[in-house]
Amino acid sequence: VKRSGDTGDRDQSDRGYVSLETAIAWIDAATRCLPTEQVSLCNARGRVLSEDHRAGSALPPCDRAALDGFAVRAQESVGASAYNPLSLPAVTVAAGDALPAGADAVVPFEHAQSDETGRILLVEAVAPGANVDRQGAVAAEGSILVPSGTRLAARHIGTLATAATLKVPVVRQPRVRILLAGSLRSQRHFDSNGPMIRVAAERDGGMIVGLVAVERNQSALAVALAATDADIALVIGGTGRGPDDCAAAALAEAGELAVHGVALRPGETSGLGQTGKRVPVVLLPGAPIACLWSYEMLAGRAIRRLGGRASALPFRPRTMTITRKIISAIGMTEIWPVRYGGAVDTVEPMPSFAEIGLMAAAGGDGFIIIPEPSEGYPQGAVVTVYPYEGR
Amino acid sequence: VKRSGDTGDRDQSDRGYVSLETAIAWIDAATRCLPTEQVSLCNARGRVLSEDHRAGSALPPCDRAALDGFAVRAQESVGASAYNPLSLPAVTVAAGDALPAGADAVVPFEHAQSDETGRILLVEAVAPGANVDRQGAVAAEGSILVPSGTRLAARHIGTLATAATLKVPVVRQPRVRILLAGSLRSQRHFDSNGPMIRVAAERDGGMIVGLVAVERNQSALAVALAATDADIALVIGGTGRGPDDCAAAALAEAGELAVHGVALRPGETSGLGQTGKRVPVVLLPGAPIACLWSYEMLAGRAIRRLGGRASALPFRPRTMTITRKIISAIGMTEIWPVRYGGAVDTVEPMPSFAEIGLMAAAGGDGFIIIPEPSEGYPQGAVVTVYPYEGR
Repeated sequence: VKRSGDTGDRDQSDRGYVSLETAIAWIDAATRCLPTEQVSLCNARGRVLSEDHRAGSALPPCDRAALDGFAVRAQESVGASAYNPLSLPAVTVAAGDALPAGADAVVPFEHAQSDETGRILLVEAVAPGANVDRQGAVAAEGSILVPSGTRLAARHIGTLATAATLKVPVVRQPRVRILLAGSLRSQRHFDSNGPMIRVAAERDGGMIVGLVAVERNQSALAVALAATDADIALVIGGTGRGPDDCAAAALAEAGELAVHGVALRPGETSGLGQTGKRVPVVLLPGAPIACLWSYEMLAGRAIRRLGGRASALPFRPRTMTITRKIISAIGMTEIWPVRYGGAVDTVEPMPSFAEIGLMAAAGGDGFIIIPEPSEGYPQGAVVTVYPYEGR
Repeated sequence: VKRSGDTGDRDQSDRGYVSLETAIAWIDAATRCLPTEQVSLCNARGRVLSEDHRAGSALPPCDRAALDGFAVRAQESVGASAYNPLSLPAVTVAAGDALPAGADAVVPFEHAQSDETGRILLVEAVAPGANVDRQGAVAAEGSILVPSGTRLAARHIGTLATAATLKVPVVRQPRVRILLAGSLRSQRHFDSNGPMIRVAAERDGGMIVGLVAVERNQSALAVALAATDADIALVIGGTGRGPDDCAAAALAEAGELAVHGVALRPGETSGLGQTGKRVPVVLLPGAPIACLWSYEMLAGRAIRRLGGRASALPFRPRTMTITRKIISAIGMTEIWPVRYGGAVDTVEPMPSFAEIGLMAAAGGDGFIIIPEPSEGYPQGAVVTVYPYEGR
């Protein structure tokens, strides 16, 4: 793990920032997958399977006809030809039927003719196993059909249901407590951040067990934090260095302040720590755009990890070309908004989040993560773009 | 719209199949976006905004300092230089503060020194507007911040909340009624298909208002369909041509059977129509893998359209290379399961859905859609792959 001091960047170390990597390493060490609970299949969509689901029997459970035709014993067809048609006993089967005892191949209807005695005339030998779905060919008994850690979608639910499973073991949803530690000056931000972070946490699998405004003073916030018995607490607002910014001090009072100040833009004043009960806490800045990115890069990861999901951002990256240059500060991981460009696989950098705030997120198609040591990218650079879900 | 007969394909027209395009055109004509309802912001995640959300005032609402410094009148700095330092009246401002009356530029603290009289000494002229966020620069009053049709994510919720909006207008969720018309023979499929299609419909924004087993005879099913007052009904099972397959006849009795048999594999026996009350109905085959793909290619589209979502499949396509050939039947749109290959941007075709059923979906990473006129693809072909969500 890189320490902030290693970058040699004045700006960052002067302010006591840790690198985003250091902050992430702290989160990864502080969060582990929650225990299992049983839920009904119909409520299991999006949940994370916590045990391997194995085939209770072989699939198919027996040798089955792969198509409609005559079930025969292949050995009896040896030597059949146009010059030497052979007459064989045969049983009519439909696709999916179990093969009758003794049969090991299926001849399609169009390749033979039956007579009234239940025999067919063959002019070509049949290989053992021809047109047969072998017992266990799809899955051996006990083989893994849906592995532990799978986020369950319709196709998995269908597979689980095939085994007549009514309840499935999934990772318990992380209980998330959100404390709004607003200031008088930025009162209007509460309304904005509360719903925004609530739905973001729900997207990541969290269950909101409280979204409450706390008086913005250190003792009140420390008491609220110390009392938290959720799986994670998020504090919104009061993370700056101003006289009425008490979130960091309150967390230190309630337990441990591990990180305050992350080389992340937007989101510089983010903090991390835990309460005396070892509940992990993420401090999110009160400015809406900083709150959003602090959530996305830090808190969201913690919630996903608690819930057994993949740690990575829930946006699938794509390689694209930028249509104009981006200038970014060295020593800060910077998140930059982009819009799809006119040409295929191009994106146009938008004015920065610092300039236009949430509008850049609401009006954009995705973002670029500019790493700490980078000064940005020239026009035409090929970069990794994270399109938002649904874009 | 291509009619099935146009393909000249014997297999398809012999069986009375319509092309997938024809089936989709029927769905598109039969479904339109539902009306608006108001929901609270905290419940709006994933819902589709049904009216443009516009800026109630300009953003920023006034000219604001872009950084901490001295607010000045730029005109008074004209002619300032190292040889001709000028003394100007100045007001200290913090980033985000409204500019004081008369000021039109901000000089950063580090570029000037103040004296006790509230004046600063400048050695360089300042341009009007320097370090000022102009009123309306982010958004003019009345401009669209979140357009109608947006599927709301955290960043939109935050933007809407900034305007102190408590309720937002969204498209009503489609009410989906699921009728299980099972046979005695395939009884175990009910358990599998019901939960699977339920969660698939929920993924597409549907609200399940009933998931009920109906006796498998034409009258009982016709009565259940005719009574439906949901926005869409799905019938699972009984779609084949066998003697106890009554779904198509029941739909015809309850209203109109528009399509029975689609050139889609898996999913050949799918059907489409509507009840006397003009409730659209999709008939899904009872075999689980055919049920899933009939849902994905037909019913899911109908539900998404009713709910105001994009019609297209909710899987983002990627261009990838296949590591071995695929042989597909001409005249059928075939869905083929794939797994990610060893090399970057490659996929390995799996045994077909016909061979291994739902296991191919649960164990795969995505699928390829092989169009009707295609015989498949050679090894190394570059194809469009639809990775499953989360893969």
